Amino acid sequence: MSLSNLGTEQLQEKDRSYVFHPSTYLAKHSRGETPNRIMAGAEGVYIWDTEGRKSLDGFGGLYCVNMGYGCAEIAEAIAQQARELPFAHVYAGQGTKPVALLAEAIVEYFGQNMRRVFFGLSGSDANETNIKLVWYYHNILGLPQKKKIISRLRGYHGSGLVTGSLTGLPFFHDHFDLPLEIVRHTTTPHYYRQAQDGESEEAFSKRCADELEALILAEGPETVGAFIGEPVLGTGGIIPPPQGYWTAIQAVLDKYNILLIADEVVCGFDRTGEKFGSHLYGMRPDIVTVAKGLSSAYLPISGSIIGERVWSVLEQGTEKHGALGHGWTYSGHTLCAAAALANLDVLKKKNILEHVRDVGPYWQEQMKAKLDGHPIVGEVRGVGILSAVELMRDPKQRIPFEPNLQVGVRAAATLLENGVIGRAMPHADTIGFAPPLIIKRNEIDIIVDATARTVDATYRSLKAEGVL
Amino acid sequence: MSLSNLGTEQLQEKDRSYVFHPSTYLAKHSRGETPNRIMAGAEGVYIWDTEGRKSLDGFGGLYCVNMGYGCAEIAEAIAQQARELPFAHVYAGQGTKPVALLAEAIVEYFGQNMRRVFFGLSGSDANETNIKLVWYYHNILGLPQKKKIISRLRGYHGSGLVTGSLTGLPFFHDHFDLPLEIVRHTTTPHYYRQAQDGESEEAFSKRCADELEALILAEGPETVGAFIGEPVLGTGGIIPPPQGYWTAIQAVLDKYNILLIADEVVCGFDRTGEKFGSHLYGMRPDIVTVAKGLSSAYLPISGSIIGERVWSVLEQGTEKHGALGHGWTYSGHTLCAAAALANLDVLKKKNILEHVRDVGPYWQEQMKAKLDGHPIVGEVRGVGILSAVELMRDPKQRIPFEPNLQVGVRAAATLLENGVIGRAMPHADTIGFAPPLIIKRNEIDIIVDATARTVDATYRSLKAEGVL
Ligand SMILES: Cc1ncc(COP(=O)(O)O)c(C=O)c1O
Ligand SMILES: Cc1ncc(COP(=O)(O)O)c(C=O)c1O
Repeated sequence: MSLSNLGTEQLQEKDRSYVFHPSTYLAKHSRGETPNRIMAGAEGVYIWDTEGRKSLDGFGGLYCVNMGYGCAEIAEAIAQQARELPFAHVYAGQGTKPVALLAEAIVEYFGQNMRRVFFGLSGSDANETNIKLVWYYHNILGLPQKKKIISRLRGYHGSGLVTGSLTGLPFFHDHFDLPLEIVRHTTTPHYYRQAQDGESEEAFSKRCADELEALILAEGPETVGAFIGEPVLGTGGIIPPPQGYWTAIQAVLDKYNILLIADEVVCGFDRTGEKFGSHLYGMRPDIVTVAKGLSSAYLPISGSIIGERVWSVLEQGTEKHGALGHGWTYSGHTLCAAAALANLDVLKKKNILEHVRDVGPYWQEQMKAKLDGHPIVGEVRGVGILSAVELMRDPKQRIPFEPNLQVGVRAAATLLENGVIGRAMPHADTIGFAPPLIIKRNEIDIIVDATARTVDATYRSLKAEGVL
Repeated sequence: MSLSNLGTEQLQEKDRSYVFHPSTYLAKHSRGETPNRIMAGAEGVYIWDTEGRKSLDGFGGLYCVNMGYGCAEIAEAIAQQARELPFAHVYAGQGTKPVALLAEAIVEYFGQNMRRVFFGLSGSDANETNIKLVWYYHNILGLPQKKKIISRLRGYHGSGLVTGSLTGLPFFHDHFDLPLEIVRHTTTPHYYRQAQDGESEEAFSKRCADELEALILAEGPETVGAFIGEPVLGTGGIIPPPQGYWTAIQAVLDKYNILLIADEVVCGFDRTGEKFGSHLYGMRPDIVTVAKGLSSAYLPISGSIIGERVWSVLEQGTEKHGALGHGWTYSGHTLCAAAALANLDVLKKKNILEHVRDVGPYWQEQMKAKLDGHPIVGEVRGVGILSAVELMRDPKQRIPFEPNLQVGVRAAATLLENGVIGRAMPHADTIGFAPPLIIKRNEIDIIVDATARTVDATYRSLKAEGVL
């Protein structure tokens, strides 16, 4: 094929003529009015397009390329497994070596009382599996009413009809008739924006837990099956929980016999400086969702890690009713499992956990040092290698910019011109960062400097335009 | 790692201790009471386990390994892309070469009035996307009530909460509170089992369409958004439609302004002897679901092909409301797209369509010649390289075996002992076949002979047991 000779323009034309992109203004894209970089290669924390324009990927794809681009060990494991056996299904008790070893590695890495892993492809389908299992669990226990799922406003758990309902962001609901009735949303635990004057972090956490309890009581505890949450809110704004939050939430869930699903799709596998966000905040989840960092996105794979409490009931269920009817053709995909296994191997060999504990705090300090107190910076926040800067019209009075100004989107565009990819988060004017975990100090410096320059430039141009 | 030295028993122990398998009796699996082959390698139409036991894979994985195992071109494309760029997201108009070329190849292969491809990972998530788009479509057109989806009893469209509801098989509903309210099921178009005495195929098709129309009228046509169907029913029993079926159905859908989703996950990409099942039966779908054969399962990838009618409204929607909020992190996964592209290349270079048109009829003839008229064979059916044998207590009177006898499951086990993998379909006592499309005549002979011997052995042992 001479396809490899296609130039950028030809590729862009095909892209605009045939590809239906996620989260895109479709009509503008067809007309050629949206940016349309065709990405072509990548190495370490850098990615470049067909024109050779190179960017420091400060968002690691979509917080997923944790071991960085161009990791030879993972690529080689993929190449080898592709030749040996790309695919054998794992239905009805059939297995493969990569799947057995990967499941073991995941269960051991999480520790606590985890028992089994159900494999999927995406974070969304893993959460879909989780909700099915919560329903089955309560049915087996004779509590058929316990089916509602509580999630948080600004949580992100996927894009399906049910998982998009768990997601608490209007961008994923509007015009799709979501959220569905089975989901309820509770308070976003964002201290900076939501705390009352003079309220301490602990007091705010207590209030979040009280509001959850009030919601449960209003719905009827006998109708609430599970609570789902990201240890650190991700797509909703990269927001670490306030002091004492998860302890307070966990107590309410325990009181009303409500399962806890920890959505570790972003936090899992060292990103926060602990193996899992659950460990950092003392959560005791019954089910854990993993994806992204599980394979560093080299191939699509997700998992639902099932704890003893749920697993024992699932086994019981099959004793009563026979095989449990759930699965995707590509559950435990051989080649994807081999990639994930190699990825976890790299993560251990490179001692990424120690690395994150080393450079994570450095990054958080540098960001605060260079950006805190800037006239349009409301909050600089983060944990591990996860960070965000929230831009505000009046940081002290906590007055945001008007949404139509699109300050966050503009700032992300300026940042890109400065050579760094950061993400304008879909809610408020927040620039988020979640680079590959292998990032070095000098690369962190590049992100921090570019961000500081970007915020300054944004401030100056808003002033010049008379907005400020 | 010394992991490669693990023996079968060690792998099985890990598998039983850590893997949550799809569609499995969990408690028995943990106790070691289920078969637990660890698959290790494969070539052409053969697959073998860690003990070296080789089987002719008459089900092509799960009707997906269409180009067969060990295809060097696909494996090489994967190896190369893994080194070059395994992953770049395609959100917000960002693109990659493999994704642009693949979307073009799919749209062109389907032809008709198809416009764009939205990429996912699984057949289930593609159908999830489809339902979201149907809802959005009717909202944009100002028909917010048009949201119910009609599917068929014994259809299979996935395993999620919504897609599992579309599926019309109790095994996937029971104990999961499915189907959800938004789905309605209509008649299974299975002539052999459902036709009334003396009813012709055409008359039966007409009755199916009449029953669909009656359902639509009972629900209120203004509440019905789409109809979804597999051109040939797959998991429900591998059942080609009766004469005139799709024409009759299509007319009803047109009459009530109901979108047609053709689920081509099994039928797509030459399996029926046409490029798509839709082409074979003259369907005019608005949205087409593809997966499985798109990549021959070498890597997980699915797609929703969007026709002009829907696409133009989606574009309109974004003009009104801005970017459309839907997507999976791994939508348009670079490496998976490269694998699919190589797969379609192989399919064209090997002229698989001609091959299926050549050997498909041979297989159907041989199956009928060797099995029709056997005392426990109710029906031998199929199309292209898709075939099923339905076992019945009394074929003429159409009396099935009692489900607890598990005749289908027993027969599949015997067939495996005879060296061939066939699948005991989850409904009735049907053994299904969907081998790789590259299968040769002599390999077809092996399947047919083994099946004939198996059915005979099953018959003899049922007699010996006094069941017959
Ligand atoms: C916390 C969390 N859960 C679930 C998902 C959904 O994952 P996917 O996009 O792979 O479906 C995401 C994706 O960003 C996520 O951040
Ligand atoms: C017709 C059809 N649609 C959808 C699906 C679901 O695909 P997946 O298992 O990849 O989710 C299947 C799977 O067998 C199928 O046969």
